[in-house]
Amino acid sequence: MHNKEPHILLVNDDGIFAPGLAALNEALQGLGKISIVAPATEKSAVGHAITLSDPLRIYDFHKNGSFFGIAVHGTPADCVKLAVSALLDEPVDMVVSGINLGSNTGLNVIYSGTVSAATEGTLLGIPSFAVSLATYKNPNFAPAMRFARKTAEKVLEQGLPQGTLLNINVPNLADENAIAGVMVTEQSKARWQETFDRRVDPKERVYYWMGGYKVEMDEALVKDDTAVRNGYISVTPVQFDLTDYQQIAAIQKLNLLY
Amino acid sequence: MHNKEPHILLVNDDGIFAPGLAALNEALQGLGKISIVAPATEKSAVGHAITLSDPLRIYDFHKNGSFFGIAVHGTPADCVKLAVSALLDEPVDMVVSGINLGSNTGLNVIYSGTVSAATEGTLLGIPSFAVSLATYKNPNFAPAMRFARKTAEKVLEQGLPQGTLLNINVPNLADENAIAGVMVTEQSKARWQETFDRRVDPKERVYYWMGGYKVEMDEALVKDDTAVRNGYISVTPVQFDLTDYQQIAAIQKLNLLY
Repeated sequence: MHNKEPHILLVNDDGIFAPGLAALNEALQGLGKISIVAPATEKSAVGHAITLSDPLRIYDFHKNGSFFGIAVHGTPADCVKLAVSALLDEPVDMVVSGINLGSNTGLNVIYSGTVSAATEGTLLGIPSFAVSLATYKNPNFAPAMRFARKTAEKVLEQGLPQGTLLNINVPNLADENAIAGVMVTEQSKARWQETFDRRVDPKERVYYWMGGYKVEMDEALVKDDTAVRNGYISVTPVQFDLTDYQQIAAIQKLNLLY
Repeated sequence: MHNKEPHILLVNDDGIFAPGLAALNEALQGLGKISIVAPATEKSAVGHAITLSDPLRIYDFHKNGSFFGIAVHGTPADCVKLAVSALLDEPVDMVVSGINLGSNTGLNVIYSGTVSAATEGTLLGIPSFAVSLATYKNPNFAPAMRFARKTAEKVLEQGLPQGTLLNINVPNLADENAIAGVMVTEQSKARWQETFDRRVDPKERVYYWMGGYKVEMDEALVKDDTAVRNGYISVTPVQFDLTDYQQIAAIQKLNLLY
């Protein structure tokens, strides 16, 4: 597909310091030229935010004494836009976002900075995928690294349908041979149920901490959450036409008038 | 539908100070009890962001000497979550987000804080809609106010399909009788083409300003952008299953293996 070495852009939302990004970089070594452009700080749950009202500051980020990538004081979507439009000299052939700590399944996909970076790549016409590991602690990146590499090879070879990205979620298993398989899945209706912890600061001003827990709504194995819970790597094709085509007739029947 | 007065939550992403929110409040007077919970500062293009790593501070916002609403140092989605789960004593019967300055059509919907607030309401099981006015300057809120009120009446009476919100975009016309009509539309593929203005600050650090222009991709009148450009009020039913069902077979054929 490529006459020259492919150019791969890596991004994430946990920040340029995150071990998941280093793991992704390690996993894709040898597949092409890798450029890393990632948020300077953690940007979890920024959703598909972009920064319009502030300038985007950048700096070179070094690791173990050598250049690692460009840190952007912005969101994951900002990183991809800025990388492709301004920072990188060569065209990007593939965007890979991750490896995120915490799954991006069910309705949480709409809050996901990790997925938004892959969305942004896709909007720019670049085959893109996002990889998340379903844990916040004691991560074993090995299965996600292995699958990210195999997927990257396939995507560089065969591309992806235009306008479609892959949202990949990997179960966190200590034994990398315990992965049950790969399943092409659908976004479930699982959602985050918020709780708010009300507190009062020393100056007697009220503030709240958002917390919560996941509510599972669907047990079918074809759903992203269920697949991951059962030890499968979940691959969901994602697109961004939010039109609810099935309800167009119902909304027309509402007969909204000016 | 209601034995008692309906409880309507108003929110926006331009901030609690914004004239569009005051216009919406004015438009819906008399339809029920109105509560306003909105961002303390402008939050445009925050997408579906939520605030997990910072506390959410709130304060009472007064206007012309009387209580207007609660300002939240957070995103539009934060406002709805916090309002429904913690701040308001009574259940909310409808969420209305807006009136936003600037259209939320085409692919820009995924960046829209205005739409994300209505999405959040819908996820909480509350009929919700978002209203945007297609201009950044010289707004005439009158047509959007009139249509928001008529829509609110209908939605309070008849509800909305579960899991579906309305994304409403109103053309900015000086003459409110020039509105061509109401059209139930589909999200177009129109998108924002970014430009980045590279600058160097007095300390010789590089920074970028994001700018851009809209690229229209579709001229069919049933598309949100085109409808608005032709003087119609656009009503798009929106849902949040991002699964690309049409590409599931193609992704299965990729035969991704672990």
